[in-house]
Amino acid sequence: MSLFVQKYGGTSVGSIERIEAVADKVATFRAQGHEMVVVLSAMSGETNRLIDLAYQIQEKPDPRELDVLVSTGEQVTIALLTMALKKRGYDACSYTGGQVKILTDNAHTKARIQRIDVERMRRDLDLGKVVVVAGFQGVDEEGNITTLGRGGSDTTGVALAAALDATECQIYTDVDGVYTTDPRVVDSARRLNRITFEEMLEMASLGSKVLQIRAVEFAGKYKVPLRVLSTFEEGGGTLISLDEEDNEMEQPVVSGIAFNRDEAKLTIRGVPDNPGVACRILAPVGAENIEVDVIVQNISAVDGTTDFTFTVHRNDLGKARDVLERVAAELGAKEVVADDKIAKVSIVGVGMRSHANVASRMFSALGEDNINIQMITTSEIKISVIIDERYLELAVRALHSEFELSEPREAREKL
Amino acid sequence: MSLFVQKYGGTSVGSIERIEAVADKVATFRAQGHEMVVVLSAMSGETNRLIDLAYQIQEKPDPRELDVLVSTGEQVTIALLTMALKKRGYDACSYTGGQVKILTDNAHTKARIQRIDVERMRRDLDLGKVVVVAGFQGVDEEGNITTLGRGGSDTTGVALAAALDATECQIYTDVDGVYTTDPRVVDSARRLNRITFEEMLEMASLGSKVLQIRAVEFAGKYKVPLRVLSTFEEGGGTLISLDEEDNEMEQPVVSGIAFNRDEAKLTIRGVPDNPGVACRILAPVGAENIEVDVIVQNISAVDGTTDFTFTVHRNDLGKARDVLERVAAELGAKEVVADDKIAKVSIVGVGMRSHANVASRMFSALGEDNINIQMITTSEIKISVIIDERYLELAVRALHSEFELSEPREAREKL
Repeated sequence: MSLFVQKYGGTSVGSIERIEAVADKVATFRAQGHEMVVVLSAMSGETNRLIDLAYQIQEKPDPRELDVLVSTGEQVTIALLTMALKKRGYDACSYTGGQVKILTDNAHTKARIQRIDVERMRRDLDLGKVVVVAGFQGVDEEGNITTLGRGGSDTTGVALAAALDATECQIYTDVDGVYTTDPRVVDSARRLNRITFEEMLEMASLGSKVLQIRAVEFAGKYKVPLRVLSTFEEGGGTLISLDEEDNEMEQPVVSGIAFNRDEAKLTIRGVPDNPGVACRILAPVGAENIEVDVIVQNISAVDGTTDFTFTVHRNDLGKARDVLERVAAELGAKEVVADDKIAKVSIVGVGMRSHANVASRMFSALGEDNINIQMITTSEIKISVIIDERYLELAVRALHSEFELSEPREAREKL
Repeated sequence: MSLFVQKYGGTSVGSIERIEAVADKVATFRAQGHEMVVVLSAMSGETNRLIDLAYQIQEKPDPRELDVLVSTGEQVTIALLTMALKKRGYDACSYTGGQVKILTDNAHTKARIQRIDVERMRRDLDLGKVVVVAGFQGVDEEGNITTLGRGGSDTTGVALAAALDATECQIYTDVDGVYTTDPRVVDSARRLNRITFEEMLEMASLGSKVLQIRAVEFAGKYKVPLRVLSTFEEGGGTLISLDEEDNEMEQPVVSGIAFNRDEAKLTIRGVPDNPGVACRILAPVGAENIEVDVIVQNISAVDGTTDFTFTVHRNDLGKARDVLERVAAELGAKEVVADDKIAKVSIVGVGMRSHANVASRMFSALGEDNINIQMITTSEIKISVIIDERYLELAVRALHSEFELSEPREAREKL
């Protein structure tokens, strides 16, 4: 007998018929003897409808009241699913974030979970009840309703799984798992059966929108096995778990290809290369709340100057350019060059830790297709390159093929 | 400086525009220095929409979960009104029934208020905040969400006014007060400036649908002055308060004419008139959960039998008749006669306590129009007659005129 925490997103509970289908799914698990905790989002569209009401009143809605408002969405679905389970003869009980209780800080609209009282849930589970919990919400010390921010229901699921020491946290969504890359770019992209937390974080932060980054971090921190599955199709989904060392030899070198078209590149040319110059360039950018992603600085030229390049979100390009023009004048740099026609492509895989030649394979694959690499950045389990955005799809396909990601893992492991 | 509790019904908060209008109204009172507590219903139609979702899932929705579901309706409006007040520069804070907290018993969908914690509201009021509370809902000792039943927001308003020792509880609705009778029947029906709790109870239970009976009882018990006003029109509304003795001489004899077309009459003829016969007739009726209203038994005829008549709700007539046929056979009665073409007309007024001839004025007014009285029942402040329903409007107009209810109170007092 296992304890499963299952989270169903807005599309999965978007109508009465779909709520009934979720009840069938949960009932099947319960009938097999498993202890079940179910976390729900609001019906798809409902949160936006509520937020829209708020914006009709206030240009910048009061955060405390916005949380009171939008938290009603999940309260509706938990009541309806509990009724559907009872109709099927399964005892069940619904809880709001405040009732469970999921204690958070008081940062309205983006609160962080601090503690979860499991006593009442544990008592219900011992009585054989299915526990149905509203995702995305909690209460602060004062009893004010808080929400965890968009997608926070994933975080609720993982946090409950951690607090209850669940066997697995299952995130049901409208995709059937995590893919080697976006199937819209590479036809032969394949669903991964397994991926590590670290890999998932790199994939997520690079643009795979399957799971909230925060939920993955949380799952990694508390070692909660996390599974992404489709509500609408059968299948084992993708299990996100620890990198178990004894399996390391079986790890493929690269697990997936992530990419991102949201960045823009800024270069400040001919900066006198004195100690502390990087800080003098980036500190004013940070002071404007502009997040910087890739940073590259090369060794000085013979004239003692250097070129300094970094990327920012495209929405921040104008603001960042203004800051940089000011800095360039102060530092006596030659010029500032901006380019928003770029894309970032990354290969991700814990396997590359033990394979030295991964980078050269990546660069040579891109070179064979005449794709010029503008910037390179690496981490232990990821290599990212910045290229001209026109070559994005070509690059992704080349790398997907180079690392044989279309082949089932077993086949690749034999290569 | 006064403390007002204002309750706004579903029609009053039925759209963003109307919520903004309520905010204007509340802001005007606050700007005058009054302490303000506002109780809201759900947007009109919302509670029915939610209940409908529940019935799509369960034929008989689980009461606990139904409360979780429908209580979201008021949670939406309190957040939106609080935003609207903040936009106007007034500090405000919203509270659900659980947050206030309004402690109830655990009778889901028809819970009774047991206690209200005023501490947090008092603290907010001292800080100059408008306190906005969700009507209709509370929590039980275990923290489960409960609701007070349809129209329960009036009760929330009165209970908060009692707990906070408010100057007045103002119920804003879509009518501008309590009338001498239904203006659709009598053109010249007039809004009453004042009425006592007792009179209001008699008016309400006889069919005036302005206020929840429970809220009036509650207000009477805790001596909370209650005012009914229109959200949409200016005016002082009707104040429902104690019958102050020093004003008794100024009381009009009759305050209003109530009526009811929902009853049916049953007579069991020729019952042997033994002690205990009334109980032997009515006990089986009560055992079927049929409520009995007017009961009349006359003295025995010379043959030692009597006729026994009572009224029930028209919906219960068939069931009551079946019971009565059985009883008639057991008691050896002659026959059972049923009639659902009746109406009840009542004159209500605390003034009739000190006026002996009110009944005779009533009967003579009806007699002048050739209206036959089938049954009569009286209480200290009410006289009701059962008549043929065809004469209902005629009877109401005759009595409205006889007791000069179209005249302003001052004019009548001089007569």
